[in-house]
Amino acid sequence: METQTTLPTNQSAAEIRSDNAHSSVACIAGEMQQVEQLLRDQMQSKYEDLSPLLAHGALLGGKRLRPALVLLAAKASGELKRDHVVLGTVVEMIHTATLIHDDVLDAADQRRHLPTVNAKWNDQTSILLGDYLFAQAFTLSATLGSTQACQWIGDAARRVCEGELRQIFTSGFANLSEQDYFDIIRGKTAELCRVSCQLGGCYSGADAAAQTALAEFGENLGIAFQIADDYLDVWGSTDRVGKTLGTDLLQAKPTLPLIRLLQTDPAMQTQLDELQDASDDERCQAIMSNLDRSDAKEYTLARAKQFAANAIAAIDFLPASAAKKALQEIAMFSVNRNF
Amino acid sequence: METQTTLPTNQSAAEIRSDNAHSSVACIAGEMQQVEQLLRDQMQSKYEDLSPLLAHGALLGGKRLRPALVLLAAKASGELKRDHVVLGTVVEMIHTATLIHDDVLDAADQRRHLPTVNAKWNDQTSILLGDYLFAQAFTLSATLGSTQACQWIGDAARRVCEGELRQIFTSGFANLSEQDYFDIIRGKTAELCRVSCQLGGCYSGADAAAQTALAEFGENLGIAFQIADDYLDVWGSTDRVGKTLGTDLLQAKPTLPLIRLLQTDPAMQTQLDELQDASDDERCQAIMSNLDRSDAKEYTLARAKQFAANAIAAIDFLPASAAKKALQEIAMFSVNRNF
Repeated sequence: METQTTLPTNQSAAEIRSDNAHSSVACIAGEMQQVEQLLRDQMQSKYEDLSPLLAHGALLGGKRLRPALVLLAAKASGELKRDHVVLGTVVEMIHTATLIHDDVLDAADQRRHLPTVNAKWNDQTSILLGDYLFAQAFTLSATLGSTQACQWIGDAARRVCEGELRQIFTSGFANLSEQDYFDIIRGKTAELCRVSCQLGGCYSGADAAAQTALAEFGENLGIAFQIADDYLDVWGSTDRVGKTLGTDLLQAKPTLPLIRLLQTDPAMQTQLDELQDASDDERCQAIMSNLDRSDAKEYTLARAKQFAANAIAAIDFLPASAAKKALQEIAMFSVNRNF
Repeated sequence: METQTTLPTNQSAAEIRSDNAHSSVACIAGEMQQVEQLLRDQMQSKYEDLSPLLAHGALLGGKRLRPALVLLAAKASGELKRDHVVLGTVVEMIHTATLIHDDVLDAADQRRHLPTVNAKWNDQTSILLGDYLFAQAFTLSATLGSTQACQWIGDAARRVCEGELRQIFTSGFANLSEQDYFDIIRGKTAELCRVSCQLGGCYSGADAAAQTALAEFGENLGIAFQIADDYLDVWGSTDRVGKTLGTDLLQAKPTLPLIRLLQTDPAMQTQLDELQDASDDERCQAIMSNLDRSDAKEYTLARAKQFAANAIAAIDFLPASAAKKALQEIAMFSVNRNF
């Protein structure tokens, strides 16, 4: 994965965030700002002692990818409305809730160049803040006048949990097939991207075929993004990614690089088993050197690019527009990033 | 608090559950069974490896108090419908989600005579199962045809989290006033009881005044229940309650018995501070003996009874019915239980 620019602290997602007028998402810059504003409004409590926590939570969100998907899918397929700003905020809040809980699961202490909630406060606070965000997101989605968004978003959130639970249940370098892996990341990562695009289309008045195509775009994009995340956890730079790396390896999460390594060199399983009692550093270095000797790096990147290409193809039939172009650029960006 | 009966394992809530035809809730026995069935249906996944976890989760629910409140409030104020069975299941799922997360927060290993999810699996699984239940509950509430339930339930769930967060932020025997304490338990416990009664009334066709009265009943009942829980954590029996006791004391949660003790004997604060480095057993025993020397026991029970009486009075104006009688019996039971 090529290094393109050195990104300033806390600005790592400038490609997607609205504050970069030159980015490919300039066509939704105004609406992205409305999402930021609504997000800040939603992260307020009448209890003053909770304010610093909620404000910190709002900063931890990812690259604002999911709101951008809602808005761009809407604009590429029909009319962009205020409902989309609400929907974008809802999916970002759900995403942030899952990130905050993930940081507890991973015992991570840094996210987007900021301390995690568990690092700055504690695990208990993280669990409750995640729950708070889930509840608030669902309440907000219920302001939309129909139950469609509530159902789709609730269903998507459940599938995210299902994917994460299955990931835990299959951890420990067990014989996880590539198919199982894709099934898991389809839940834990791709599902929210899928539903973001589908909601964008549904609330813009797009027909059923366009909604399906947008959903397919989102799902393939999400899978590409997660494979790239797995890649960066092994071969990324902590400075650029802005979070603790190597955690997947240490936690024996079955990610694509490892699955590939085990597929192409079955004797590796024994070696990995023997490393169970080694120190974190030893274990990490041993796995890394084996990964570097295999074709796991090239294979992982190739698979990510394949899903990104599928995403781009899925919406090829949409009429040309700045929004369509932006969606396709995001798909390319998903596998050509260093953070 | 008087001991009345010795309850069989796993049957501790026979007073409220539908399987006791002689109970005060016989008038909703059929609907309570429908709630149990729907709950089991909702706790199924297409992934076989998740089945034991979900089935265990369904057993961890509390006394099925909240579904009973939805159904009884409906029947006491209008027409009991299928919607109420759905609503009862939704609030029970949200309640179960909060219990599962609470068990992580408290590092508890037993709940309702069963191992907690964190004890049987691990903390990660507990966090994700709780999230799964939240998401599934919101999806189910969105099947009701209007966004009313989604909004109220989402809002109630947020207030529950707000209450729990404030409890954490005020722990450590700080100078928490009784008012703050009531404010916190109004969120963390009473809110779901309040919304259960309100939803029961709203979906039965009750008028605004009756809905408000039912909501007031639920809130006061919930506060009484929580005070009684705090009481049982200090003076209950582990066998009867079916969970680890004394955890509030050890975690320095500001519960009513402790707040009362500090109010009536300000010198206690110094003594408590000095105990910070003592062993769990020493600390627990020292606090207990101070509590027993004070009027905290009688005071706590009197306050609980006062809220139960407020609950009973709030729905006094409803026409006489088996359902109204059952609601008032539950209010009395809330403070006359030993589990």
